[in-house]
Amino acid sequence: MNYNSNEITNLIEQLSKLPGIGGKSAQRLAFHIIDMPLEQVEKLSDTILTTKQKVRCCKSCYTLTDQEVCPICSSESRDHHVVMVVEDTRDLLAYERTGRYNGVYHVLHGALDPSIGRGPEDIKLKELLVRLQSEDVDEVIIATNSDVAGEATAMYLSKLIKPSGIKVSRIASGVPIGGELECIDEVTLLRALEGRVEL
Amino acid sequence: MNYNSNEITNLIEQLSKLPGIGGKSAQRLAFHIIDMPLEQVEKLSDTILTTKQKVRCCKSCYTLTDQEVCPICSSESRDHHVVMVVEDTRDLLAYERTGRYNGVYHVLHGALDPSIGRGPEDIKLKELLVRLQSEDVDEVIIATNSDVAGEATAMYLSKLIKPSGIKVSRIASGVPIGGELECIDEVTLLRALEGRVEL
Repeated sequence: MNYNSNEITNLIEQLSKLPGIGGKSAQRLAFHIIDMPLEQVEKLSDTILTTKQKVRCCKSCYTLTDQEVCPICSSESRDHHVVMVVEDTRDLLAYERTGRYNGVYHVLHGALDPSIGRGPEDIKLKELLVRLQSEDVDEVIIATNSDVAGEATAMYLSKLIKPSGIKVSRIASGVPIGGELECIDEVTLLRALEGRVEL
Repeated sequence: MNYNSNEITNLIEQLSKLPGIGGKSAQRLAFHIIDMPLEQVEKLSDTILTTKQKVRCCKSCYTLTDQEVCPICSSESRDHHVVMVVEDTRDLLAYERTGRYNGVYHVLHGALDPSIGRGPEDIKLKELLVRLQSEDVDEVIIATNSDVAGEATAMYLSKLIKPSGIKVSRIASGVPIGGELECIDEVTLLRALEGRVEL
Protein backbone atom coordinates (compact mmCIF):
# COMPACT_ATOMS: atom_id res chain seq x y z
CA MET A 1 0.00 0.00 0.00
CA ASN A 2 1.33 3.39 -1.01
CA TYR A 3 0.59 6.06 1.60
CA ASN A 4 2.10 8.97 -0.38
CA SER A 5 4.82 8.97 2.26
CA ASN A 6 7.49 6.52 3.35
CA GLU A 7 7.17 7.94 6.84
CA ILE A 8 3.48 7.11 7.12
CA THR A 9 4.03 3.65 5.62
CA ASN A 10 6.84 3.01 8.08
CA LEU A 11 4.83 4.22 11.07
CA ILE A 12 1.81 2.09 10.15
CA GLU A 13 4.05 -0.94 9.68
CA GLN A 14 5.64 -0.53 13.10
CA LEU A 15 2.36 0.14 14.88
CA SER A 16 0.78 -2.94 13.30
CA LYS A 17 3.48 -5.12 14.88
CA LEU A 18 2.18 -4.24 18.36
CA PRO A 19 -0.13 -6.80 20.01
CA GLY A 20 -3.85 -6.36 19.32
CA ILE A 21 -3.28 -3.73 16.63
CA GLY A 22 -4.28 -4.83 13.14
CA GLY A 23 -3.70 -3.05 9.85
CA LYS A 24 -6.79 -0.85 10.10
CA SER A 25 -6.12 0.21 13.71
CA ALA A 26 -2.49 0.94 12.84
CA GLN A 27 -3.63 3.20 10.00
CA ARG A 28 -6.12 5.00 12.26
CA LEU A 29 -3.47 5.42 14.96
CA ALA A 30 -0.89 6.75 12.49
CA PHE A 31 -3.22 9.41 11.11
CA HIS A 32 -4.28 10.29 14.64
CA ILE A 33 -0.63 10.80 15.62
CA ILE A 34 -0.07 13.02 12.57
CA ASP A 35 -3.09 15.10 13.70
CA MET A 36 -1.87 15.44 17.29
CA PRO A 37 -0.10 18.65 18.41
CA LEU A 38 3.69 18.35 18.04
CA GLU A 39 4.42 18.62 21.77
CA GLN A 40 2.07 15.71 22.51
CA VAL A 41 3.78 13.58 19.88
CA GLU A 42 7.20 14.52 21.30
CA LYS A 43 5.98 13.49 24.76
CA LEU A 44 4.63 10.15 23.51
CA SER A 45 7.80 9.37 21.56
CA ASP A 46 9.95 10.32 24.53
CA THR A 47 7.90 8.38 27.09
CA ILE A 48 8.12 5.21 25.02
CA LEU A 49 11.91 5.35 24.93
CA THR A 50 12.42 6.58 28.51
CA THR A 51 10.17 3.86 29.91
CA LYS A 52 12.09 1.19 28.05
CA GLN A 53 15.40 2.66 29.23
CA LYS A 54 14.50 3.20 32.88
CA VAL A 55 12.36 0.21 33.75
CA ARG A 56 14.23 -2.80 35.13
CA CYS A 57 13.60 -5.73 37.47
CA CYS A 58 13.42 -5.24 41.26
CA LYS A 59 16.53 -6.98 42.59
CA SER A 60 14.48 -8.74 45.24
CA CYS A 61 11.21 -9.85 43.61
CA TYR A 62 11.98 -9.22 39.90
CA THR A 63 8.87 -7.18 39.19
CA LEU A 64 9.27 -4.37 36.67
CA THR A 65 10.04 -1.08 38.40
CA ASP A 66 12.13 2.04 37.94
CA GLN A 67 13.89 1.60 41.29
CA GLU A 68 16.55 -0.79 42.47
CA VAL A 69 14.09 -2.30 44.95
CA CYS A 70 10.36 -1.96 44.13
CA PRO A 71 7.98 -0.05 46.45
CA ILE A 72 6.35 -3.30 47.60
CA CYS A 73 9.62 -4.97 48.61
CA SER A 74 10.83 -1.84 50.35
CA SER A 75 7.54 -1.25 52.22
CA GLU A 76 7.62 -1.94 55.94
CA SER A 77 3.86 -2.28 56.13
CA ARG A 78 3.88 -5.40 53.90
CA ASP A 79 4.24 -8.88 55.39
CA HIS A 80 7.59 -10.16 54.13
CA HIS A 81 6.96 -13.64 55.54
CA VAL A 82 4.41 -14.39 52.80
CA VAL A 83 5.56 -14.53 49.17
CA MET A 84 3.13 -14.84 46.26
CA VAL A 85 4.72 -16.30 43.13
CA VAL A 86 3.27 -14.94 39.86
CA GLU A 87 4.19 -15.37 36.21
CA ASP A 88 4.53 -11.71 35.35
CA THR A 89 4.16 -8.13 36.54
CA ARG A 90 0.62 -7.85 35.19
CA ASP A 91 -0.45 -10.72 37.47
CA LEU A 92 1.10 -8.88 40.42
CA LEU A 93 -0.85 -5.77 39.43
CA ALA A 94 -4.06 -7.82 39.23
CA TYR A 95 -3.61 -8.89 42.87
CA GLU A 96 -2.61 -5.37 43.89
CA ARG A 97 -5.89 -4.13 42.44
CA THR A 98 -7.78 -6.32 44.94
CA GLY A 99 -6.20 -4.14 47.65
CA ARG A 100 -6.41 -7.08 50.08
CA TYR A 101 -3.13 -8.94 49.68
CA ASN A 102 -0.55 -7.67 52.12
CA GLY A 103 2.37 -10.03 51.49
CA VAL A 104 5.17 -9.58 48.94
CA TYR A 105 5.68 -11.16 45.52
CA HIS A 106 8.12 -13.05 43.34
CA VAL A 107 7.79 -12.58 39.59
CA LEU A 108 8.97 -15.58 37.54
CA HIS A 109 8.79 -13.86 34.12
CA GLY A 110 7.09 -16.85 32.55
CA ALA A 111 6.00 -20.40 33.31
CA LEU A 112 7.67 -23.71 32.52
CA ASP A 113 6.54 -24.61 29.01
CA PRO A 114 8.32 -27.38 27.09
CA SER A 115 6.20 -26.60 24.00
CA ILE A 116 8.13 -23.34 23.56
CA GLY A 117 11.31 -24.70 25.10
CA ARG A 118 11.06 -22.71 28.34
CA GLY A 119 12.71 -24.61 31.17
CA PRO A 120 13.64 -23.83 34.81
CA GLU A 121 16.75 -21.90 33.68
CA ASP A 122 14.66 -19.49 31.63
CA ILE A 123 12.51 -18.12 34.45
CA LYS A 124 13.43 -16.50 37.80
CA LEU A 125 13.18 -19.82 39.65
CA LYS A 126 16.69 -20.18 41.01
CA GLU A 127 16.36 -16.59 42.24
CA LEU A 128 13.25 -17.61 44.21
CA LEU A 129 15.02 -20.56 45.84
CA VAL A 130 18.01 -18.38 46.81
CA ARG A 131 15.62 -15.84 48.26
CA LEU A 132 13.76 -18.46 50.30
CA GLN A 133 17.08 -19.62 51.78
CA SER A 134 18.20 -16.16 52.81
CA GLU A 135 14.88 -14.65 53.90
CA ASP A 136 12.56 -15.69 56.70
CA VAL A 137 9.53 -16.87 54.71
CA ASP A 138 6.59 -18.73 56.30
CA GLU A 139 4.42 -19.32 53.25
CA VAL A 140 4.77 -19.37 49.48
CA ILE A 141 1.46 -18.84 47.64
CA ILE A 142 1.71 -20.06 44.06
CA ALA A 143 -0.44 -17.86 41.83
CA THR A 144 0.70 -18.95 38.38
CA ASN A 145 -2.06 -19.12 35.74
CA SER A 146 -4.56 -21.99 35.72
CA ASP A 147 -3.44 -23.21 32.31
CA VAL A 148 -1.23 -26.22 31.53
CA ALA A 149 2.07 -24.33 31.85
CA GLY A 150 0.97 -22.53 35.01
CA GLU A 151 -0.21 -25.75 36.67
CA ALA A 152 3.00 -27.57 35.73
CA THR A 153 5.06 -24.72 37.16
CA ALA A 154 3.03 -24.83 40.39
CA MET A 155 3.61 -28.58 40.80
CA TYR A 156 7.32 -28.21 40.04
CA LEU A 157 7.79 -25.34 42.48
CA SER A 158 5.83 -27.10 45.19
CA LYS A 159 8.09 -30.17 44.98
CA LEU A 160 11.21 -28.00 45.14
CA ILE A 161 10.10 -25.87 48.08
CA LYS A 162 8.27 -28.33 50.36
CA PRO A 163 11.41 -30.17 51.60
CA SER A 164 12.61 -26.89 53.13
CA GLY A 165 9.62 -26.93 55.49
CA ILE A 166 8.07 -23.73 54.13
CA LYS A 167 4.28 -23.90 53.72
CA VAL A 168 3.33 -23.96 50.03
CA SER A 169 -0.20 -23.11 48.87
CA ARG A 170 -1.94 -22.66 45.53
CA ILE A 171 -4.68 -20.12 44.80
CA ALA A 172 -8.07 -21.85 44.41
CA SER A 173 -9.49 -22.95 41.09
CA GLY A 174 -13.25 -22.89 40.68
CA VAL A 175 -16.26 -21.08 39.31
CA PRO A 176 -15.56 -17.35 38.92
CA ILE A 177 -17.81 -15.06 40.97
CA GLY A 178 -20.75 -14.06 38.80
CA GLY A 179 -20.11 -17.07 36.53
CA GLU A 180 -23.10 -19.15 35.45
CA LEU A 181 -22.55 -22.87 35.80
CA GLU A 182 -23.94 -23.72 32.37
CA CYS A 183 -21.30 -21.50 30.74
CA ILE A 184 -18.34 -22.97 32.62
CA ASP A 185 -16.14 -25.72 31.16
CA GLU A 186 -16.14 -29.22 32.65
CA VAL A 187 -12.58 -29.09 34.02
CA THR A 188 -13.37 -25.97 36.03
CA LEU A 189 -16.63 -27.52 37.29
CA LEU A 190 -14.76 -30.63 38.49
CA ARG A 191 -12.09 -28.48 40.14
CA ALA A 192 -14.77 -26.50 41.92
CA LEU A 193 -16.34 -29.75 43.15
CA GLU A 194 -13.03 -31.18 44.38
CA GLY A 195 -12.16 -27.93 46.08
CA ARG A 196 -15.56 -27.55 47.80
CA VAL A 197 -15.47 -26.03 51.29
CA GLU A 198 -17.79 -26.80 54.19
CA LEU A 199 -20.23 -24.02 55.07
CA MET B 1 -3.25 2.52 39.90
CA ASN B 2 0.30 2.16 41.13
CA TYR B 3 2.53 0.39 38.59
CA ASN B 4 5.67 0.35 40.76
CA SER B 5 7.05 2.90 38.32
CA ASN B 6 6.08 6.42 37.31
CA GLU B 7 7.44 5.64 33.85
CA ILE B 8 5.07 2.72 33.32
CA THR B 9 2.12 4.71 34.72
CA ASN B 10 2.97 7.59 32.42
CA LEU B 11 3.32 5.38 29.34
CA ILE B 12 0.02 3.59 30.02
CA GLU B 13 -1.71 6.93 30.51
CA GLN B 14 -0.43 8.30 27.20
CA LEU B 15 -1.18 5.14 25.24
CA SER B 16 -4.73 5.04 26.61
CA LYS B 17 -5.39 8.49 25.11
CA LEU B 18 -4.95 7.07 21.60
CA PRO B 19 -8.17 6.20 19.71
CA GLY B 20 -9.47 2.66 20.19
CA ILE B 21 -7.02 1.89 23.00
CA GLY B 22 -8.68 1.37 26.38
CA GLY B 23 -7.03 0.95 29.76
CA LYS B 24 -6.43 -2.79 29.41
CA SER B 25 -4.96 -2.52 25.90
CA ALA B 26 -2.75 0.37 27.01
CA GLN B 27 -1.42 -1.78 29.86
CA ARG B 28 -0.76 -4.71 27.53
CA LEU B 29 0.96 -2.44 25.00
CA ALA B 30 3.13 -0.81 27.67
CA PHE B 31 4.40 -4.14 29.00
CA HIS B 32 4.94 -5.34 25.45
CA ILE B 33 7.05 -2.25 24.71
CA ILE B 34 9.12 -2.87 27.87
CA ASP B 35 9.71 -6.44 26.65
CA MET B 36 10.78 -5.36 23.15
CA PRO B 37 14.50 -5.17 22.27
CA LEU B 38 15.88 -1.66 22.86
CA GLU B 39 16.68 -0.99 19.22
CA GLN B 40 13.08 -1.76 18.21
CA VAL B 41 11.78 0.64 20.86
CA GLU B 42 14.21 3.31 19.68
CA LYS B 43 12.97 2.81 16.13
CA LEU B 44 9.31 3.04 17.16
CA SER B 45 9.90 6.15 19.26
CA ASP B 46 11.88 7.76 16.48
CA THR B 47 9.39 6.88 13.72
CA ILE B 48 6.52 8.43 15.68
CA LEU B 49 8.34 11.74 16.00
CA THR B 50 9.87 11.78 12.51
CA THR B 51 6.54 11.04 10.87
CA LYS B 52 4.89 13.89 12.74
CA GLN B 53 7.74 16.23 11.81
CA LYS B 54 8.07 15.32 8.13
CA VAL B 55 4.50 14.77 7.02
CA ARG B 56 2.73 17.83 5.61
CA CYS B 57 -0.01 18.67 3.11
CA CYS B 58 0.57 18.42 -0.64
CA LYS B 59 0.47 22.01 -1.86
CA SER B 60 -1.83 21.05 -4.72
CA CYS B 61 -4.39 18.58 -3.30
CA TYR B 62 -3.70 18.86 0.46
CA THR B 63 -3.32 15.15 1.07
CA LEU B 64 -0.77 14.17 3.73
CA THR B 65 2.60 13.43 2.17
CA ASP B 66 6.30 13.90 2.89
CA GLN B 67 6.89 15.76 -0.37
CA GLU B 68 6.00 19.26 -1.50
CA VAL B 69 3.71 17.81 -4.16
CA CYS B 70 2.32 14.31 -3.55
CA PRO B 71 3.10 11.41 -5.93
CA ILE B 72 -0.47 11.43 -7.29
CA CYS B 73 -0.44 15.14 -8.18
CA SER B 74 3.02 14.87 -9.73
CA SER B 75 2.18 11.74 -11.74
CA GLU B 76 1.83 12.23 -15.50
CA SER B 77 -0.15 9.02 -15.90
CA ARG B 78 -3.05 10.36 -13.81
CA ASP B 79 -5.90 12.28 -15.42
CA HIS B 80 -5.63 15.81 -14.03
CA HIS B 81 -8.93 16.84 -15.60
CA VAL B 82 -10.90 14.82 -13.05
CA VAL B 83 -10.74 15.81 -9.36
CA MET B 84 -12.29 13.67 -6.61
CA VAL B 85 -13.07 15.65 -3.46
CA VAL B 86 -12.70 13.64 -0.23
CA GLU B 87 -12.89 14.56 3.45
CA ASP B 88 -9.52 13.18 4.50
CA THR B 89 -6.42 11.28 3.41
CA ARG B 90 -7.84 7.94 4.57
CA ASP B 91 -10.73 8.35 2.13
CA LEU B 92 -8.22 9.02 -0.64
CA LEU B 93 -6.37 5.83 0.35
CA ALA B 94 -9.63 3.88 0.30
CA TYR B 95 -10.18 4.89 -3.36
CA GLU B 96 -6.52 4.24 -4.20
CA ARG B 97 -6.96 0.69 -2.88
CA THR B 98 -9.60 0.08 -5.55
CA GLY B 99 -6.80 0.60 -8.08
CA ARG B 100 -9.38 1.81 -10.63
CA TYR B 101 -9.58 5.54 -10.14
CA ASN B 102 -7.16 7.37 -12.37
CA GLY B 103 -8.00 11.01 -11.67
CA VAL B 104 -6.51 13.21 -8.97
CA TYR B 105 -7.92 14.29 -5.58
CA HIS B 106 -8.65 17.24 -3.37
CA VAL B 107 -8.60 16.61 0.39
CA LEU B 108 -10.87 18.95 2.38
CA HIS B 109 -9.63 17.92 5.84
CA GLY B 110 -13.15 17.67 7.21
CA ALA B 111 -16.76 18.32 6.25
CA LEU B 112 -19.02 21.26 7.00
CA ASP B 113 -20.54 20.54 10.40
CA PRO B 114 -22.33 23.32 12.31
CA SER B 115 -22.75 20.98 15.30
CA ILE B 116 -19.02 21.23 15.98
CA GLY B 117 -18.73 24.74 14.55
CA ARG B 118 -16.88 23.72 11.38
CA GLY B 119 -17.67 26.14 8.58
CA PRO B 120 -16.34 26.72 5.03
CA GLU B 121 -13.31 28.61 6.40
CA ASP B 122 -12.19 25.58 8.44
CA ILE B 123 -11.76 23.16 5.55
CA LYS B 124 -9.72 23.36 2.32
CA LEU B 125 -12.66 24.67 0.34
CA LYS B 126 -11.33 28.02 -0.85
CA GLU B 127 -8.20 26.15 -1.94
CA LEU B 128 -10.38 23.89 -4.12
CA LEU B 129 -12.10 26.85 -5.76
CA VAL B 130 -8.78 28.58 -6.47
CA ARG B 131 -7.49 25.35 -7.95
CA LEU B 132 -10.54 24.93 -10.21
CA GLN B 133 -10.01 28.46 -11.54
CA SER B 134 -6.35 27.94 -12.39
CA GLU B 135 -6.42 24.32 -13.60
CA ASP B 136 -8.20 22.80 -16.55
CA VAL B 137 -10.74 20.56 -14.78
CA ASP B 138 -13.61 18.82 -16.59
CA GLU B 139 -15.28 17.04 -13.68
CA VAL B 140 -15.39 17.26 -9.91
CA ILE B 141 -16.52 14.01 -8.23
CA ILE B 142 -17.72 14.69 -4.69
CA ALA B 143 -16.84 11.70 -2.50
CA THR B 144 -17.52 13.09 0.96
CA ASN B 145 -19.06 10.63 3.44
CA SER B 146 -22.73 9.68 3.20
CA ASP B 147 -23.53 11.12 6.62
CA VAL B 148 -25.29 14.42 7.37
CA ALA B 149 -22.09 16.53 7.32
CA GLY B 150 -20.79 14.84 4.16
CA GLU B 151 -24.10 15.28 2.33
CA ALA B 152 -24.35 18.93 3.37
CA THR B 153 -20.80 19.54 2.16
CA ALA B 154 -21.61 17.87 -1.16
CA MET B 155 -24.67 20.11 -1.67
CA TYR B 156 -22.74 23.23 -0.71
CA LEU B 157 -19.82 22.42 -3.03
CA SER B 158 -22.10 21.55 -5.90
CA LYS B 159 -23.85 24.95 -5.68
CA LEU B 160 -20.50 26.74 -5.60
CA ILE B 161 -18.92 24.90 -8.51
CA LYS B 162 -21.79 24.43 -10.97
CA PRO B 163 -21.97 28.09 -12.11
CA SER B 164 -18.41 27.75 -13.45
CA GLY B 165 -19.64 25.15 -15.96
CA ILE B 166 -17.55 22.30 -14.56
CA LYS B 167 -19.42 18.99 -14.36
CA VAL B 168 -20.13 18.04 -10.72
CA SER B 169 -21.01 14.49 -9.73
CA ARG B 170 -21.59 12.62 -6.46
CA ILE B 171 -20.58 9.00 -5.79
CA ALA B 172 -23.66 6.74 -5.66
CA SER B 173 -25.45 5.83 -2.45
CA GLY B 174 -27.07 2.42 -2.23
CA VAL B 175 -26.87 -1.11 -0.95
CA PRO B 176 -23.24 -2.17 -0.36
CA ILE B 177 -22.07 -5.15 -2.43
CA GLY B 178 -22.62 -8.31 -0.38
CA GLY B 179 -25.13 -6.45 1.81
CA GLU B 180 -28.35 -8.23 2.69
CA LEU B 181 -31.43 -6.07 2.23
CA GLU B 182 -32.97 -6.99 5.57
CA CYS B 183 -29.90 -5.67 7.38
CA ILE B 184 -29.81 -2.31 5.58
CA ASP B 185 -31.36 0.84 7.04
CA GLU B 186 -34.44 2.44 5.44
CA VAL B 187 -32.68 5.58 4.24
CA THR B 188 -30.13 3.55 2.30
CA LEU B 189 -32.88 1.35 0.83
CA LEU B 190 -34.77 4.44 -0.38
CA ARG B 191 -31.57 5.92 -1.82
CA ALA B 192 -30.90 2.67 -3.65
CA LEU B 193 -34.44 2.75 -5.07
CA GLU B 194 -34.19 6.40 -6.18
CA GLY B 195 -30.80 5.75 -7.73
CA ARG B 196 -31.87 2.60 -9.60
CA VAL B 197 -30.30 2.08 -13.04
CA GLU B 198 -31.81 0.41 -16.08
CA LEU B 199 -30.36 -3.00 -16.95
